[in-house]
Amino acid sequence: MKISIQRSELAEALSIVTKAVPSRTTLPILECVLVEVSGSRAMISANDTEIGIQTIVKCETAEEGTVAIDAKIFTQIIRKLPENVVTIATDENYKVSIDCEASHFDIPGKDPEEFPEIPRIRTKSMYVISHFMLREMVNRTNFSIAPIEERGNALMSGQLFEVKDDFLRIVSLDGYRISIRREQLKDHSENISVVIPGKAIADVAKLLSGDNEKEATITVDDNHIMFEFDDTRVVCRLVDGNYFAIDNILSLDYETKIIVNRRRFLDCVERSSLLVREMDKKPVILNIKDGNMNISMRTGIGKMDEDIDIMKMGGDIMIGLNPKFLSDALKAIDDEEVSVYLINPKAPCYIRDDRNSYNYVIQPVNFKVTED
Amino acid sequence: MKISIQRSELAEALSIVTKAVPSRTTLPILECVLVEVSGSRAMISANDTEIGIQTIVKCETAEEGTVAIDAKIFTQIIRKLPENVVTIATDENYKVSIDCEASHFDIPGKDPEEFPEIPRIRTKSMYVISHFMLREMVNRTNFSIAPIEERGNALMSGQLFEVKDDFLRIVSLDGYRISIRREQLKDHSENISVVIPGKAIADVAKLLSGDNEKEATITVDDNHIMFEFDDTRVVCRLVDGNYFAIDNILSLDYETKIIVNRRRFLDCVERSSLLVREMDKKPVILNIKDGNMNISMRTGIGKMDEDIDIMKMGGDIMIGLNPKFLSDALKAIDDEEVSVYLINPKAPCYIRDDRNSYNYVIQPVNFKVTED
Repeated sequence: MKISIQRSELAEALSIVTKAVPSRTTLPILECVLVEVSGSRAMISANDTEIGIQTIVKCETAEEGTVAIDAKIFTQIIRKLPENVVTIATDENYKVSIDCEASHFDIPGKDPEEFPEIPRIRTKSMYVISHFMLREMVNRTNFSIAPIEERGNALMSGQLFEVKDDFLRIVSLDGYRISIRREQLKDHSENISVVIPGKAIADVAKLLSGDNEKEATITVDDNHIMFEFDDTRVVCRLVDGNYFAIDNILSLDYETKIIVNRRRFLDCVERSSLLVREMDKKPVILNIKDGNMNISMRTGIGKMDEDIDIMKMGGDIMIGLNPKFLSDALKAIDDEEVSVYLINPKAPCYIRDDRNSYNYVIQPVNFKVTED
Repeated sequence: MKISIQRSELAEALSIVTKAVPSRTTLPILECVLVEVSGSRAMISANDTEIGIQTIVKCETAEEGTVAIDAKIFTQIIRKLPENVVTIATDENYKVSIDCEASHFDIPGKDPEEFPEIPRIRTKSMYVISHFMLREMVNRTNFSIAPIEERGNALMSGQLFEVKDDFLRIVSLDGYRISIRREQLKDHSENISVVIPGKAIADVAKLLSGDNEKEATITVDDNHIMFEFDDTRVVCRLVDGNYFAIDNILSLDYETKIIVNRRRFLDCVERSSLLVREMDKKPVILNIKDGNMNISMRTGIGKMDEDIDIMKMGGDIMIGLNPKFLSDALKAIDDEEVSVYLINPKAPCYIRDDRNSYNYVIQPVNFKVTED
């Protein structure tokens, strides 16, 4: 193999695919990127067996070929070379020579046959969505997946990707809260319900531009989901099993509804968190009365309380919530005002909008009312 | 005590003094800042016994007084409050109440009597220097102090602060390299030679603006050095003992002198470092001939080499240097071209300018020449 390639384009391609290089692995070949040159295109791939990423860079080809190169050192070298054309050549022992201006590197490569193939998708269902919408739907729900396979449940560390009646719904939950985003797809689309590993879908979101005009294509078969955008293709293994029947608990009934300025509410909850130390399960207490919500926190470090103006419908209520879960949800919303729906101090609280584009559900925390 | 104070001004004062709050201590009072209110000024202090920092904020005073408050939680609260006037009040049990708009916090304070007094300086010698010059002289030498008291030598983890014939010289060394900056003082100044703990002087540099018009005043007595600038005063304990007699090894003799583009040289050395893993002592090899320097590195990861144009006076030479020490020195210099002075492969290499404003001395590393 011998090619010439613009440094910045190769560096960009490496920064894309190396998201799929595992930071720890017992299989050294997974620490490599695969470079496959054919015609005037180099396809660069990485694969950690849960997610595989491939991207295409154009190059000038003196000799076609394929080689696996250690991702870390290859990326570091390409990043540090001067901005010019880089020549990459391999010999029969997979020794890789990299030349750029006066700089010359030799590093060992590996037999490309060892590199695990990225699965091919047998098209079953296909969807089209803007980069921006997909990225935002993922980023605004991804924070509430459970830490990897906590409770031994892989479904909880995944995200539901569900199409129903031309609406896409993305969901994550960790047993204490549920985060849901839902948007209409432009085209008529087949119904589907699959679970994607949470880390893999977060990596996809990081690669998407914030562009509303550009479209990503999503293809699903029985075992994999593939995202295609720009010159890049990401293939993720699906999580086996049926996702939780969340619709049963998404009640629209409520006893109390409040409307509150989101920023003001968020600032106040974040201030209350200052008094909480890690591993401390202290809830923030919302004491809701006509026109006023008192927010308070009492821990070994100190006490805080603060009043916020609200609009209230229904009865007075006092409820304790995990302040981190509450601020995570409030940060994931853009609206100036949010509506919070409450039933009783033991039932979940819902932060949702009228058109059902988001719904953040938080389990309450038990608390004792103490006097000063 | 009861005062009203603008949030941003208090936050700024806290961000200054908390540099002197130790991250770990067995003496809980050192985790506090001291707030002393008299007239319309609040003096905020922190003191880790090696360095003490005090700064003044103006306030509206309803009641004078003094209290010690946990630095971390106090700073976090003040940072998160809305931008408005903050009221701080204490009761006879040192309970601290903080109010800002609708937000109310109560946190416990401590008896100010426990707080260790910041030493008073009995003026012995005084110097005036611009913020910019002091900051740059420190930042461009501080990187080569030894890790804290490695080799059991406190002097090596300090920096020499020496005034001689109206020139200020700041020096650090770690046994493998010496970094020296030297600048003329504006006023006639008494000769002096003291050693300042490296971390303390780095903290002072962080607090200094890059302003060339503003002046800092430095006062030294037998045990302490004090820096005064803006509304802030920093007092550092001096390190006992006589600094190393470095002038004996600062030879001006050389066998080879090269002049090289600094940026080009630095880029090349940084590229060579990519092949060095932590704990690996592999040197970068400079092979200097007429008009050309070949820079090479060979490790278990791979090989690199690169040629750079140079101007050379004197004989050919091949020398091995620690690439990190070389790039640290080259990064600390602004000049477009640097002069490197060499004697033989076992003798230190010097990077210095003609007016002696900097001198970076690096011990060479032994190496074996190997063939491919």
